[in-house]
Amino acid sequence: MTATTPAVPDQQRQVEDELVRRVLASFDDTPDPRLKEVMRALVRYLHAFIREVRPTEAEWQRAVDFLTAAGHLTTDRRQEFVLLSDVLGASMQTINVNHEAADGATEATVLGPFFVADSPEIPRGGDMAAGAPGEPCWIEGTVTDTAGDPVPGARLDVWEADADGLYDVQYDDGKLACRARLHTGDDGGYAFWGLTPTPYPVPHDGPVGALLRTTGRSPLRASHLHFMATAPGMRTLVTHIFVAGDGALDSDAVFGVKESLVRPFERQPAGTPAPGGRDLSGRSWSRVRFDIVLRRQ
Amino acid sequence: MTATTPAVPDQQRQVEDELVRRVLASFDDTPDPRLKEVMRALVRYLHAFIREVRPTEAEWQRAVDFLTAAGHLTTDRRQEFVLLSDVLGASMQTINVNHEAADGATEATVLGPFFVADSPEIPRGGDMAAGAPGEPCWIEGTVTDTAGDPVPGARLDVWEADADGLYDVQYDDGKLACRARLHTGDDGGYAFWGLTPTPYPVPHDGPVGALLRTTGRSPLRASHLHFMATAPGMRTLVTHIFVAGDGALDSDAVFGVKESLVRPFERQPAGTPAPGGRDLSGRSWSRVRFDIVLRRQ
Repeated sequence: MTATTPAVPDQQRQVEDELVRRVLASFDDTPDPRLKEVMRALVRYLHAFIREVRPTEAEWQRAVDFLTAAGHLTTDRRQEFVLLSDVLGASMQTINVNHEAADGATEATVLGPFFVADSPEIPRGGDMAAGAPGEPCWIEGTVTDTAGDPVPGARLDVWEADADGLYDVQYDDGKLACRARLHTGDDGGYAFWGLTPTPYPVPHDGPVGALLRTTGRSPLRASHLHFMATAPGMRTLVTHIFVAGDGALDSDAVFGVKESLVRPFERQPAGTPAPGGRDLSGRSWSRVRFDIVLRRQ
Repeated sequence: MTATTPAVPDQQRQVEDELVRRVLASFDDTPDPRLKEVMRALVRYLHAFIREVRPTEAEWQRAVDFLTAAGHLTTDRRQEFVLLSDVLGASMQTINVNHEAADGATEATVLGPFFVADSPEIPRGGDMAAGAPGEPCWIEGTVTDTAGDPVPGARLDVWEADADGLYDVQYDDGKLACRARLHTGDDGGYAFWGLTPTPYPVPHDGPVGALLRTTGRSPLRASHLHFMATAPGMRTLVTHIFVAGDGALDSDAVFGVKESLVRPFERQPAGTPAPGGRDLSGRSWSRVRFDIVLRRQ
């Protein structure tokens, strides 16, 4: 890739080319071939970007200041660099290249920062909401392989934000809620209660939030519920389901939406009998079906 | 720019293309046209890089961890992101695009992290070393414009590391040394005493140092002495002079070396009479000439 902006005179282009050549050559002795390949590609694209954009020194300093602020905000509980990768679509593109669309398997999307290993196990039909605010939602479906055969005993980790737009780990009370692990039955089927997903903003009080504001972008994530599906011999699937008709589907801040993952959540008026005879005390609820197709490894 | 790796099937390429299209479109409403241009270019190059390199999710996480470590190491006195930019040649390329080679003007190179505004003024022929360890060096030359006319009253800021490889600001004693400001005379001439430059490593105890090690690169900077030349009506020049024959000229860690900036430093045996009749107590010394050509604004 060569910057070919016509405004750059020959003598200047030679100076810029020569620098790229020298930086590439500096990685010639990298022992690990993969690291060498990655670093050389990084140098090519980074220099092509600089030569096209031709940043002023003040602009380059702004980029350094941005990364510095992101680094200073980042802790064990707040990852501004992941958020940056997310809002540039880089996380989603990394998911894409690692989970190629094929064979009718369910598509993957971003893991996000709120996954917790070893969530509490619930039985089929159990409730993961654990009292968190929001409208109850019945989620059911099957897990099959790409040949259509059921996958019994598949492990599903499921998690979502509550109606206040917060995940349990964003509260400081140490309580787990809207998060569970369950397993498919012999028929590959599963079912559980959660909450009807609602939109919420990504953390936007840091440099990434400022970037979204100055570029006129929304910090909202489209309403979604997370799934991670794991089964012996199958590729692990990390995905979401999204709510058909949600206003943020076309402007999801992290570009996680795939059309194949949008599902109708059917609203049930208050008083409609609920699965398992659950007493919802006169509240409305919703229901959705999500059939998951896993690829063999 | 489109990733055209032939191994990527059509259906997969469409998924990846579609994501790039959506991320680019997300910046459509950016009010500032320059920011919009920069962000769109960033998205194009970032996604082209990901689609070519096809990082595993673990590799992407390593990149996040690298940036996080760089951010946590960065303080007012230590800038790991600038160092990263330096060792990837990005700082030097930014210098290149902002100071196009032309008209026989002296070429620019990197500012580096050790410039200090308002250094102590010394007279023509004064000594900036202030007792720092190293071999005395007599530096002299003229400042002219590209027509060859002298530039009287040009301000020169000069600074360098001592023979222990450290700049004054890297000591915790608050003393200024190997750092001065002087002005050209009516003839455009200047002269001062400093130290013969010696090679030293960039800070290499952080993630950037680890990157240099794992890629088999040297952390050494080629021996050099910094100049910043400022005069009314002229473009400010930030540059170095390098020592001809220095072993690190071809492997300068930050790619700052330009052939036109390499100068012979002539070693003078102990006892050789020194300019200004300076008493060097029987020590050897060196001398170098550096004529600076500034461009009009």
